[in-house]
Amino acid sequence: MHTLFYGGTVVTAEGMFTADVLVRGERIAAVGVGLPREDAVLVDATGLYLLPGAIDAHTHLECVCSGIATSDDYFTGTRAAACGGVTTVIDYLLQDEDELLPVTLAKRVAMATPKAAVDFAFHIGVRDLSRPELLASLKDAVAAGVSSFKAYMVYDFGLCDGGLYQLLQETAKAGALVTVHAENRGMLDSRVKAYLAEGKTEPWWHYMSRDEAVAAEANRRAIALAKAVGAPLYLVHLTDADGVTAVTQARDEGYPIFAETCPQYLNFTCEVYHEPRGQDYVCSPAIKGKDSQRALWAAIRRGDVQTVATDHCPFTLAEKDYGIRLPDGREGNFTTIPNGCDGIETLYPYMLTQANLGRISFSRAVGVCASNPARLFGLDDRKGAIRAGMDGDIVLYDPKAQGVVKADALHGNLDHTIWENTALSGRITGTWLRGRQVFDGQAFRGAQGEGRFLPCKPVWFDSSALV
Amino acid sequence: MHTLFYGGTVVTAEGMFTADVLVRGERIAAVGVGLPREDAVLVDATGLYLLPGAIDAHTHLECVCSGIATSDDYFTGTRAAACGGVTTVIDYLLQDEDELLPVTLAKRVAMATPKAAVDFAFHIGVRDLSRPELLASLKDAVAAGVSSFKAYMVYDFGLCDGGLYQLLQETAKAGALVTVHAENRGMLDSRVKAYLAEGKTEPWWHYMSRDEAVAAEANRRAIALAKAVGAPLYLVHLTDADGVTAVTQARDEGYPIFAETCPQYLNFTCEVYHEPRGQDYVCSPAIKGKDSQRALWAAIRRGDVQTVATDHCPFTLAEKDYGIRLPDGREGNFTTIPNGCDGIETLYPYMLTQANLGRISFSRAVGVCASNPARLFGLDDRKGAIRAGMDGDIVLYDPKAQGVVKADALHGNLDHTIWENTALSGRITGTWLRGRQVFDGQAFRGAQGEGRFLPCKPVWFDSSALV
Amino acid sequence: MHTLFYGGTVVTAEGMFTADVLVRGERIAAVGVGLPREDAVLVDATGLYLLPGAIDAHTHLECVCSGIATSDDYFTGTRAAACGGVTTVIDYLLQDEDELLPVTLAKRVAMATPKAAVDFAFHIGVRDLSRPELLASLKDAVAAGVSSFKAYMVYDFGLCDGGLYQLLQETAKAGALVTVHAENRGMLDSRVKAYLAEGKTEPWWHYMSRDEAVAAEANRRAIALAKAVGAPLYLVHLTDADGVTAVTQARDEGYPIFAETCPQYLNFTCEVYHEPRGQDYVCSPAIKGKDSQRALWAAIRRGDVQTVATDHCPFTLAEKDYGIRLPDGREGNFTTIPNGCDGIETLYPYMLTQANLGRISFSRAVGVCASNPARLFGLDDRKGAIRAGMDGDIVLYDPKAQGVVKADALHGNLDHTIWENTALSGRITGTWLRGRQVFDGQAFRGAQGEGRFLPCKPVWFDSSALV
Amino acid sequence: MHTLFYGGTVVTAEGMFTADVLVRGERIAAVGVGLPREDAVLVDATGLYLLPGAIDAHTHLECVCSGIATSDDYFTGTRAAACGGVTTVIDYLLQDEDELLPVTLAKRVAMATPKAAVDFAFHIGVRDLSRPELLASLKDAVAAGVSSFKAYMVYDFGLCDGGLYQLLQETAKAGALVTVHAENRGMLDSRVKAYLAEGKTEPWWHYMSRDEAVAAEANRRAIALAKAVGAPLYLVHLTDADGVTAVTQARDEGYPIFAETCPQYLNFTCEVYHEPRGQDYVCSPAIKGKDSQRALWAAIRRGDVQTVATDHCPFTLAEKDYGIRLPDGREGNFTTIPNGCDGIETLYPYMLTQANLGRISFSRAVGVCASNPARLFGLDDRKGAIRAGMDGDIVLYDPKAQGVVKADALHGNLDHTIWENTALSGRITGTWLRGRQVFDGQAFRGAQGEGRFLPCKPVWFDSSALV
Repeated sequence: MHTLFYGGTVVTAEGMFTADVLVRGERIAAVGVGLPREDAVLVDATGLYLLPGAIDAHTHLECVCSGIATSDDYFTGTRAAACGGVTTVIDYLLQDEDELLPVTLAKRVAMATPKAAVDFAFHIGVRDLSRPELLASLKDAVAAGVSSFKAYMVYDFGLCDGGLYQLLQETAKAGALVTVHAENRGMLDSRVKAYLAEGKTEPWWHYMSRDEAVAAEANRRAIALAKAVGAPLYLVHLTDADGVTAVTQARDEGYPIFAETCPQYLNFTCEVYHEPRGQDYVCSPAIKGKDSQRALWAAIRRGDVQTVATDHCPFTLAEKDYGIRLPDGREGNFTTIPNGCDGIETLYPYMLTQANLGRISFSRAVGVCASNPARLFGLDDRKGAIRAGMDGDIVLYDPKAQGVVKADALHGNLDHTIWENTALSGRITGTWLRGRQVFDGQAFRGAQGEGRFLPCKPVWFDSSALV
Repeated sequence: MHTLFYGGTVVTAEGMFTADVLVRGERIAAVGVGLPREDAVLVDATGLYLLPGAIDAHTHLECVCSGIATSDDYFTGTRAAACGGVTTVIDYLLQDEDELLPVTLAKRVAMATPKAAVDFAFHIGVRDLSRPELLASLKDAVAAGVSSFKAYMVYDFGLCDGGLYQLLQETAKAGALVTVHAENRGMLDSRVKAYLAEGKTEPWWHYMSRDEAVAAEANRRAIALAKAVGAPLYLVHLTDADGVTAVTQARDEGYPIFAETCPQYLNFTCEVYHEPRGQDYVCSPAIKGKDSQRALWAAIRRGDVQTVATDHCPFTLAEKDYGIRLPDGREGNFTTIPNGCDGIETLYPYMLTQANLGRISFSRAVGVCASNPARLFGLDDRKGAIRAGMDGDIVLYDPKAQGVVKADALHGNLDHTIWENTALSGRITGTWLRGRQVFDGQAFRGAQGEGRFLPCKPVWFDSSALV
Repeated sequence: MHTLFYGGTVVTAEGMFTADVLVRGERIAAVGVGLPREDAVLVDATGLYLLPGAIDAHTHLECVCSGIATSDDYFTGTRAAACGGVTTVIDYLLQDEDELLPVTLAKRVAMATPKAAVDFAFHIGVRDLSRPELLASLKDAVAAGVSSFKAYMVYDFGLCDGGLYQLLQETAKAGALVTVHAENRGMLDSRVKAYLAEGKTEPWWHYMSRDEAVAAEANRRAIALAKAVGAPLYLVHLTDADGVTAVTQARDEGYPIFAETCPQYLNFTCEVYHEPRGQDYVCSPAIKGKDSQRALWAAIRRGDVQTVATDHCPFTLAEKDYGIRLPDGREGNFTTIPNGCDGIETLYPYMLTQANLGRISFSRAVGVCASNPARLFGLDDRKGAIRAGMDGDIVLYDPKAQGVVKADALHGNLDHTIWENTALSGRITGTWLRGRQVFDGQAFRGAQGEGRFLPCKPVWFDSSALV
Repeated sequence: MHTLFYGGTVVTAEGMFTADVLVRGERIAAVGVGLPREDAVLVDATGLYLLPGAIDAHTHLECVCSGIATSDDYFTGTRAAACGGVTTVIDYLLQDEDELLPVTLAKRVAMATPKAAVDFAFHIGVRDLSRPELLASLKDAVAAGVSSFKAYMVYDFGLCDGGLYQLLQETAKAGALVTVHAENRGMLDSRVKAYLAEGKTEPWWHYMSRDEAVAAEANRRAIALAKAVGAPLYLVHLTDADGVTAVTQARDEGYPIFAETCPQYLNFTCEVYHEPRGQDYVCSPAIKGKDSQRALWAAIRRGDVQTVATDHCPFTLAEKDYGIRLPDGREGNFTTIPNGCDGIETLYPYMLTQANLGRISFSRAVGVCASNPARLFGLDDRKGAIRAGMDGDIVLYDPKAQGVVKADALHGNLDHTIWENTALSGRITGTWLRGRQVFDGQAFRGAQGEGRFLPCKPVWFDSSALV
């Protein structure tokens, strides 16, 4: 089946121009002026924008955190994705103890394949390097299609500096990328202990225990280790102004250091933790202050934060209330709130709204939501751009429409959204996955299992990696 | 006439991919996979790269400096350009005293139109703001197709800080860009006077009188003025490491500050002024030391120098010898050498050689030589990219070929080249201007007068201007 | 005559300690514990602080600016000084056109000698370098006791960059210091012209025409020139946060760059120009915003601003009103207000108040008001410290007293003070000049002509000049 | 007994001046001009300098490291100190496991008191915070006279980030200072493991396993934690250029961050590890490259490294050879070499040599070796300056003498010195401790047990702590 999108404005990470786009089978066959209509299904894109399908490079689907599963599985999560213009998700797995990394991958490919409604790839969180074989298995995981490995600098399953250092060495050799959750564990744990001892249990103390300083130290440490190794590094969910400065400095020096942030850090500030339902915003790292929010936007504008992804990790209102009372009746506190917020369906609409309002260009929105994650994670031979030869992952966008987010109208499985009532400027009126329409502007039109596992290619970063 | 380039690798500022390119008439009609061959002339690009025609954003053709005309006129200069893959030149004009700026433009459009072999646009050097009408005429020049105005911070015809400040205010209102030659006049003049008094006359003292410090101060002053006004700024021929730092800092702060450098600053160091024919390398600003050269390359890699242009301003060997003896028999010195070097035909070959050697990516080479100047000077609706709708300005490049630069084999009018014997990796095997071939890999095949004046559009810069 | 101050706390730039101080004749003979009382006049300093007499390193006495003389002559100004604990003033002279620098000095030594009530030295403002002999006379002025030469970067009598560059070269050879008034003339003049054309005449536009940006550019330019020459530099009346950053950076790099600020920049902000008598605060550079004020204090605390002096340049209320109406009946505007404020008698009381309130240490107050100017201007063999061998210039200070500034109670010649009603913490209860008491806490007890001309020694600065 | 030093030049951290110094009993009674000779013993200091006795703020006497005792005990070490002009040592203790901190102190005061030949104070290394009582005992140690507590970021007995964070909180409350050994343990351990596995056993790999990067990360982490707490911090034995930058930046921001370096880092570079007896230079952190050496000197000059101390930790040649073969016959490697070098007797002579050669001023040498450690560790009411009221700790120094270091001529217990044959400019001709001569220029003239324990006062640091 062929589809010809005619009369629209193509948006790429580099610019906007009027052109027709022909999708033949699963791939884009041509981008041109006055393309012959052949036997294609015609889609009139007059007045609309054609965007590449977004890539949500940070999700936690069917993920069990502290014994509680996130509310979206690989089907409901990717159904929501499709309806939000996201045609690829890169989901985070976590190595089990003493588990070879390809095993971690294989189990999850098996889980996701029958369910996924959009294409998917994986990052693997590395927790156990206790035997040399475990680290050695990284190259097998790369061969199997994983190009990024996550290190947590906090949590029981986190890596110490030595582990992170060795992981950076191994990934640098394998053409892979370490993605790092950077917070200082010692500061965090000391503060949590002190606050709880003082009876400070409310969500606000979630922020106070992991504030700007807790993030800043760890960002710089992770970058220092990467520089020492000569390895590329990707800071996930960057939240703080000093982190932006640290990334900018390292990049100015020529190091391949990259950063991701999330819509929640761009739209809210730590003041939300004082709200009546502050617990709903509890995610890690915590949302920071206004200065950090400004710095993140500035970094997106100038290219020092390269990706915006969601850290989609949804928990129900009842689960969020564990911060007050636990299922077993014990009193809760800010540490017993399941960590995570929703965002997979609102990512592209939110970022495109900002473009529509002039805060960033549409090309920048496409860059951070699609083209850049494709390049960084080795998917850019198929995803992230509207160009001959790429997958026919196309989002139609009406820049004139207006709307607001309503949890009821979302297509995931969560009973609320932190984005409730957020005003949207512009509207996604259709999503195509490899040439097939999966969203019609109202309803999901794809199917469970239609998404495919995408092996990520190794990427050999240097200072001009993202040209 | 239609031309189908098939089987090649398209290089854009953002990436490389295999695709066919169809040029219909003067414009690119489609970029696609397996495009129908229709009735097009077929060009087999298998194994070759398709690059957008380069834009040399800094030339001085038919330019009289200190009473001596540059050796290339609008025909010989653009003939050389075509044979070097340059399909657009942006030439520098200089306002005459008490001349309205549109008049400056009109005179030169008339001169160049019958001669030019490639398309051309203009920057206007502003020297006289003595009457309010002169500055006020800037907006008329913008309407007539000039989007950039140059301020010299040195020379008798330079502007003082007040003039530069007012020029920045006027361009900011008009969607135009100030391009600035930044050197400190007081330091320069004081040194020249002192050196000559001490009998220091050799070319080396050209460098010593305008070394890193002379450039550094003025770069920062120009940036400070632009920041105070809130105007965009473009530093022409940036040469020094501190200048790179200054640009990077300003950009990190979010200001639309841009910089150009030239191949001579990237390939040579000030040591050339100690060579027997040091006079041949005398250009202003002077070529700096190794640290500056390294800093310029690093800035190109990370995007803090956006363009590479030539400052093509050729003088013959005999004219260069005025540094020893003047035509009237008086002894010469470093100040009597006509300032300028050649480069228009070697620009793209040199930068592509660096890409071929891995110093930068091919996309970066295309960015700095084509896409970025197109964007900065308001030509990106037609020039600087291979994309549906753009002018059919295409360069075929064979990455496997090897060669060396020989003055004899160049197509301009100069009797030597500072690039003599420079090794080239890769070779341009053809140039097309708006769909017509103008170079066949050996010989110029275009025609005098075939080039057209390109009006530059106003550009409204902000911090995400170059996405 | 000998005087023994016993039981007090000696404050030096480096610390505070309890000790007796014996002054024998004009000099301090001993600092000790339980010094023998000999035949000395005894001064009970129990509960009091002994401070070295302050040095006001920036005054304009008997100075005619734009045809209007400052209201203090060498007697009234130094009488006020003595009553403010200032035992040395370093006054600014201005070279006349085509005048050799020792001549400038000699004329003024003759004027001041019969009048001065405290010791005095001079800086010479250099305006005319049109003949080589003029610059060459600098070394003769050094021999005659002037170690610092001022360059104005604004005003008709200012130096251009070339002049400043040559002055820096000459002072570096002579062991002298350039003191610079750093503002960008082009920006300033452009703005003034524009504002007046728009009818913006109020004192606020004095600030707007010479805001942070106007100072910032020139600070950095002056520093760049000094670094290029390898000369030390002293920024007079530093007012802005970026200037602080620039000085700090240069010092971190190891350059001997110094800065002075004034009490008015530490105590007020540009908001005063909106006050009903905004004209009274008109001085140049203009007082800046809150961020700059904070940066200046931080720099004093960490040692990156080394001196606080007054720029004492008083004009009467009637003269200040020339901003509204000129003597000849024409309308005035912000440019017709005589520039300058009073401060010579309130300098030490204000800075000591800040120490008393904990903003800085008492040692820091003594450092910036006495020890540092003594070192920078080559007077530290006699002035600026309480130490055996130094002049017996001693100030007794009662840290417990409280008071407010009242113009009526000041000892100068001005009819108002910008410091009216400023609260003071601590009080000066006596001043001794070379062992003779000149102030008793209420009244001036010195005499006209008692002050002596102090030749300043050359100083050879390096990066550890101020140890 | 009284002593009058007459005719000499007194050197303080702030300047040099000619004056007599009278010591009455144990204290300095007066500094003056022409002091009455009374009944004092006269010391003719004509042509000589009078310096305050140095404070070696970093020694390891009678210290057992990895089972091997340093070769100097409290007598031989302090005997050498006295002969090197050091009248105070601040020795490092290490808390035993589960030991309250005052207990650590008490044991060592008892050990040192009968032996010490100069005055002494202590830092306590904190290793065990496993019970709240242990940290709580810190305030008792402060009350007992310890004002500084060391955290090791490496070694089995080091503190993790959480421990350091809590220690900073506790010291900030107690008016005490954390001194930190900053290296990254994970990097270090990973490298050591890798090098040994590759058979890299020579002293060079000591450097490679703890190079600039290993120090840089940890310096910045320690500073980040101190900034987060708002606590002062003192980096012991700073070795690297980035560390200097980090300290400078923090100080520029107004934080009370201090740094110490050692003569071995100022005089040698990592190239010594390639020497035949590279093992003799093995100390931790390792000696770094030339860039770092330069940065350390620059920081001393501008005041961003405040102290120079020795880390005196001597091991015999035989012990150093454990890097080749261990006592039990097993092969050694770079990790089995006992870590540490000598320096207590050469500290002052080396630094004064640098002053004599013009690298720093004599005042700076006195500042970093005497006045600054006195201030930082709460001893400045008695030590570190020549001033009325201070202890009569006086060093006579002949700036004209020349010499070289010879192990044979030193007064400690070690069988070699890394300083062998180092040329010295100037010579110490006498040392007085609290008014009694303990060194006569040739021989030790003091006595075992003559030194006293000095309780350090709490110090409340702020940004103007070191005025």
